[in-house]
Amino acid sequence: MRTELFLSNPVCALFGIRVPVISGGMVWASGWRLAAAVSEAGGLGLIGAGSMTPDVLAHHIDRARAATSQPFGVNIPLAYTHSRDHVRVCIEKDVKIVFTAAGSPGLHTARLKEAGVRVAHVVPNAKLAAKVESAGCDAVVAEGTEAGGHNGRELLTSLVLWPSVVKAVQIPVIAAGGIGDGATMAAALILGASGVQLGTRFAVTRESGAHENYKNACVAADGARARIYNLATMPIRSLSNEYVEAFTTMEKEGRPTAELDAFRGRGRSKAGVFEGDTANGELPAGQVVESIDDVPDAATLMERLVDDCHTAVYNLARQEERQ
Amino acid sequence: MRTELFLSNPVCALFGIRVPVISGGMVWASGWRLAAAVSEAGGLGLIGAGSMTPDVLAHHIDRARAATSQPFGVNIPLAYTHSRDHVRVCIEKDVKIVFTAAGSPGLHTARLKEAGVRVAHVVPNAKLAAKVESAGCDAVVAEGTEAGGHNGRELLTSLVLWPSVVKAVQIPVIAAGGIGDGATMAAALILGASGVQLGTRFAVTRESGAHENYKNACVAADGARARIYNLATMPIRSLSNEYVEAFTTMEKEGRPTAELDAFRGRGRSKAGVFEGDTANGELPAGQVVESIDDVPDAATLMERLVDDCHTAVYNLARQEERQ
Repeated sequence: MRTELFLSNPVCALFGIRVPVISGGMVWASGWRLAAAVSEAGGLGLIGAGSMTPDVLAHHIDRARAATSQPFGVNIPLAYTHSRDHVRVCIEKDVKIVFTAAGSPGLHTARLKEAGVRVAHVVPNAKLAAKVESAGCDAVVAEGTEAGGHNGRELLTSLVLWPSVVKAVQIPVIAAGGIGDGATMAAALILGASGVQLGTRFAVTRESGAHENYKNACVAADGARARIYNLATMPIRSLSNEYVEAFTTMEKEGRPTAELDAFRGRGRSKAGVFEGDTANGELPAGQVVESIDDVPDAATLMERLVDDCHTAVYNLARQEERQ
Repeated sequence: MRTELFLSNPVCALFGIRVPVISGGMVWASGWRLAAAVSEAGGLGLIGAGSMTPDVLAHHIDRARAATSQPFGVNIPLAYTHSRDHVRVCIEKDVKIVFTAAGSPGLHTARLKEAGVRVAHVVPNAKLAAKVESAGCDAVVAEGTEAGGHNGRELLTSLVLWPSVVKAVQIPVIAAGGIGDGATMAAALILGASGVQLGTRFAVTRESGAHENYKNACVAADGARARIYNLATMPIRSLSNEYVEAFTTMEKEGRPTAELDAFRGRGRSKAGVFEGDTANGELPAGQVVESIDDVPDAATLMERLVDDCHTAVYNLARQEERQ
């Protein structure tokens, strides 16, 4: 694996990793197995707390620690019920890296920092990125609208968002949204990001906790099938299926929010991602499914990402020699 | 101006230009003055036929030819009434480069090619890109959803679309949507594009035919204000204003298409872009307004783009030396 692009990389320095590639915290997909595999391969694996009770999270932290001696972290979506307890568990379990998302960076950052935790927070716009820096976070994840799952209302694409966030803050910027291979990783670096976070691409690996049906659906889908729905209440990018189409029809008919919420109900993402109900479950996925056509193991994916990133950069830089 | 990245560039070779930067055909903004300025600066300026009658187009072609000896072209949106006559005018006036959009690449390509014209066609997905190649076009423009004005229903972002189109065709790919500076141009090249087309960024230059109010609105706006509306009939990305907000409210209420069409009426983009009615006119603009904060002349913009593109590429490639 070539690493010369990362010799002075601030994300590598911050987290003590060899390559600035992070696996995102995806509900029902990012358990200890995936996190440990990514960390073992030189990146930073995150356990996704969003679909876990505090007890389950504690168990996954223990398992990850048993599986790897490399740094790993936990992703905590702040919009969920358990987020305060998730923070407590991370501190009790001496987790050294926490990514927070979907909420205010002011909520738990001070508490985590006092416990010696490195904190990054996910943002969909440059204004919030500046707040993340002010809140004392060590890094910011700039996630474009092409990303799967919960999405910002701004709908800013990665190409527009990343450089804007890079301009807005001094702390390292981790690019997310639409990254699935070495060339898109290189594009993120050239736009000023210091690292990349991949969600859907890691959800479609062997170590991902997602159901085989979910992985196969991502392999089969083109990018246009990964659409945002539920824009009024909480925008989510998911593969379109019977459920999403029915929901979208109700949205178009102007049905009241309460009716839409009731129709969505609870457990849709568990049904889709974990249980493999590809018709009636929610299948959070980014537009990057356009380029996903296999289910590699995490180490193979990491090798590909890093080598193809280097190739993309050096091939372009050497255009003038190839006359 | 540094040009070593473009010494063996296929877009430069195809059009006989020095740098693979193209100014898009924006209604009411892309007249002969802007096209000639971009071509004089080493790029490819396009006259936007969309807002012109055939007679007016003929006049703009004559003026562009008088203003520059460099290659320039015409952009013809095929969805408009006059497109067949626009093609005729281009052939009669011996225009050597035509970009077509918003319609089938099979419509006029053969007729144009027989007349010795180089043809490129704009696409929002990889499937149509393959059809563009089959239709005999010389190049394809892959335009991501962040672009201003008419938009594909797929809503694929540039980061996802560009590599997918590069993989789908052998002809040169010109990247569009979200490009406003040298770093985003470098990102397009690293993702396999051979050239870039910029719309909104060139609409906000001194030589653009757009009203000063439109240019100032783009400078003031952040990217989140450039939203897609009218998704059901013809998706258009435009700065939100009183008119767009009223339209969007009607959309959310589930009003019938005929009512929406009647409310939009005719002449909205003329009112916004040409006459400067920023409240009730349509202001087609891409998310790239996030990074637009001045109104340079076209030559200055071209210098900046090309030099910053080179800097971005070589800075990244030399990271390992900067230890």
